Amino acid sequence: MTSRRQGNYIAISGGVGGAKLALGLSRVLAPDQLTIVANTGDDFDHLGFFISPDIDTVMYTLADLSNKELGWGLAGESWQFLEALERLGGEAWFRLGDRDLATHVMRTALLRQGATLSAATGQLCSALGIAHPVVPMSDDPVPTVVHTKDGDLGFQHYFVRDHCEPEVTGFEFKGIEAAHPAPAFADALAADELSAVIVCPSNPFVSVDPVLHLPGVMDAIHRARVPMIAVSPIVGGRAIKGPAAKMMAELGMPQTALAVAEHYVGRVDGFVLDDEDAGLESAVQDLGMETLVTNTIMTTLDDRVALAECTLDFARRIGTGNTK
Amino acid sequence: MTSRRQGNYIAISGGVGGAKLALGLSRVLAPDQLTIVANTGDDFDHLGFFISPDIDTVMYTLADLSNKELGWGLAGESWQFLEALERLGGEAWFRLGDRDLATHVMRTALLRQGATLSAATGQLCSALGIAHPVVPMSDDPVPTVVHTKDGDLGFQHYFVRDHCEPEVTGFEFKGIEAAHPAPAFADALAADELSAVIVCPSNPFVSVDPVLHLPGVMDAIHRARVPMIAVSPIVGGRAIKGPAAKMMAELGMPQTALAVAEHYVGRVDGFVLDDEDAGLESAVQDLGMETLVTNTIMTTLDDRVALAECTLDFARRIGTGNTK
Repeated sequence: MTSRRQGNYIAISGGVGGAKLALGLSRVLAPDQLTIVANTGDDFDHLGFFISPDIDTVMYTLADLSNKELGWGLAGESWQFLEALERLGGEAWFRLGDRDLATHVMRTALLRQGATLSAATGQLCSALGIAHPVVPMSDDPVPTVVHTKDGDLGFQHYFVRDHCEPEVTGFEFKGIEAAHPAPAFADALAADELSAVIVCPSNPFVSVDPVLHLPGVMDAIHRARVPMIAVSPIVGGRAIKGPAAKMMAELGMPQTALAVAEHYVGRVDGFVLDDEDAGLESAVQDLGMETLVTNTIMTTLDDRVALAECTLDFARRIGTGNTK
Repeated sequence: MTSRRQGNYIAISGGVGGAKLALGLSRVLAPDQLTIVANTGDDFDHLGFFISPDIDTVMYTLADLSNKELGWGLAGESWQFLEALERLGGEAWFRLGDRDLATHVMRTALLRQGATLSAATGQLCSALGIAHPVVPMSDDPVPTVVHTKDGDLGFQHYFVRDHCEPEVTGFEFKGIEAAHPAPAFADALAADELSAVIVCPSNPFVSVDPVLHLPGVMDAIHRARVPMIAVSPIVGGRAIKGPAAKMMAELGMPQTALAVAEHYVGRVDGFVLDDEDAGLESAVQDLGMETLVTNTIMTTLDDRVALAECTLDFARRIGTGNTK
């Protein structure tokens, strides 16, 4: 698909919600116009596998391999491995599907052979026929630790094993001070052609913050003088997917798109609100952000493409100072 | 099942053929009367997994989980992982089934946590409900290298990847000089109650020799003054399973049960020939071995139990010097 649009874009994505907009953007922008940067704070070592859930979700979504019934994982997945593992007394709380396992085995083997996470991701994407670059936020490990009233938990232990039940008190991105943005992410941030950074509708605390808190990332965005646009993952006081709203309540924040915008103050220039939250628009503007109100619920592929188009138009208007 | 038999036995087994007799023996002897020692020369690291094919075949056979149609692997196996791996450009020549993979993942995780291969095998057997001890020949790696006219090959590369096609010139058991019999194997060899050692119908060169060549094993058998009985894996000039006959031809040996007996001269006291090879009996006796001629083709469970009974009776007769 050739694009009638100009410029280059970075999309920052967590898992399912973010990947939907990343897919929309990939239908509107050519492969050399879009760099999709995936959060790797959720990555963890499990049963000897290096598992990178957000990279996988983005890859599977872009390759049209994602499981629409489950809302995560691969289409046509089966669970023979997991059943056999459970029988052997192995840890079965993290739902490793038979097909999905191949991704983890391949990535782990590549990393053991000395490949960076960027190189391993590139090889997997290439094998899956994904044209647009999917880039880990960093090749350095930056595991998210969830501080809870029950103690510290690795992200997947909090998210999957404990079903987000422990009450959250804060987050820590271990090792982030010494981590570097992955080379392709740094290059995209430094490129002359960069037009905007799009923060996909992902969890602000555990999907987006790890990326934006990487040393040098916000500086590079400011230096580039390009707008950063965030699409709210909270609509009508609910998280479309995942624990964002529950986390906000536990952190003493209102569970609203406005509170998400407040979280991004000083970082985000334009904020995309769902039609349902039109009433919050002027409050978001009062934070010093431009606003766009549109449908952000991405049920169909058309919804994803439409939101991508709107968001890119919005970014262009902010970039040219023509925000009407 | 309680046993009316006396004494303790060691069964030495490679893969499929050996495991059938090991199963028969397990139906005749109580768990505290039988130690099944599996060859680990075939073990290899593949895609980051520690794979122990003969241990697995013995375990799956004893747990009644083996795939009767394929003749190897697990019943009800599926191949979604392998298909996905192939799609990702991974090495798919070693047929890792979805269920089988759980065994490798579990074993590899246990070894990485510091367990010995003996301990990991014990844990897997326990999870599979296997009452009789299955013991690796050694906790030290002793990988078989197959010398061929095309160069040296790891055993699985020769056996599975290259379909036993390269012409064999010899074998090497790497590191065997420094390897020790696994503790439970050494204990069984040293036990006062030891009555006989049964060499199951497995490949003499790559399944049995690695076990018998381990430092101290033959000495211990001689010290124990118990008979060692071998069941021929060659019947009517053909290997029941696997490349034994082809190897014999390439090594310049006749492809006969007699040549197997010759290979075992000085080690084996009693040799079990199939009815089809009754004509070789006196030639085997001329090697200084006692002989038993019986049906050694184990198609049904009854065949396995019958061969186990005959072989144990034969061992007892040799042990008491009453070989009529």
